[in-house]
Amino acid sequence: MHSLGRHLLLELYDCSSEILNNLETVKATLVEAAKRAEATIIDVVFHEFNPFGISGVVVIAESHLSIHTWPEYRYAAVDIFSCGDVLQPELAANYLVEQFAAERTSVMDVQRGMFLNAAMPVVNKSPVAVS
Amino acid sequence: MHSLGRHLLLELYDCSSEILNNLETVKATLVEAAKRAEATIIDVVFHEFNPFGISGVVVIAESHLSIHTWPEYRYAAVDIFSCGDVLQPELAANYLVEQFAAERTSVMDVQRGMFLNAAMPVVNKSPVAVS
Repeated sequence: MHSLGRHLLLELYDCSSEILNNLETVKATLVEAAKRAEATIIDVVFHEFNPFGISGVVVIAESHLSIHTWPEYRYAAVDIFSCGDVLQPELAANYLVEQFAAERTSVMDVQRGMFLNAAMPVVNKSPVAVS
Repeated sequence: MHSLGRHLLLELYDCSSEILNNLETVKATLVEAAKRAEATIIDVVFHEFNPFGISGVVVIAESHLSIHTWPEYRYAAVDIFSCGDVLQPELAANYLVEQFAAERTSVMDVQRGMFLNAAMPVVNKSPVAVS
């Protein structure tokens, strides 16, 4: 069995609501998490919502990290989608749990793009255009 | 039981590899899928990779849609993450299956942010800043 991508769905409960509602902190934390996972960052997009909450995506050469925060519930949904052998998503996940002071967490580890018989190796991709 | 978000993990196999390797087509298709799902589009970020593949995210007020394509495998991984009651992710999913000519598909429907006892209603959020 062979999969093209690995996708961690991280549930962060009982976090610091103050941190989860701070755009700059959430953005810096997700970017740092990507760096700790050895990701190659291509693009960073974050937005703040009314009345509460931050949504953000760090596009990486190995796929993406995303976050949606509900400070009023002290909850954040994080996705770490990676391909190739270089990225270490666990390092990103552990860092996020620490930084958001999550007291309760769960994680699903989903293989994406499963092939029974795949001959081609899966390699890390390089960006050819930043648009 | 009460969940803050609904997350469809869509696996699209045996797609048109030509379509999956065309940045403008993939981008337009994901944007149109978001519109068909009644999403409020906030930001659109797409990148092309070497030797093959497109990664893209449509940030919406209701969370996000993302795609990663592997044209060499005729495969695309799509995520449709939504909150609130307005969005109809199935409409987006069906449109993407059609447009990419996927001959084989699978979908996981994951509830994100589950609470046993949540008093606060989950409302759609409005963007306060586009940065």
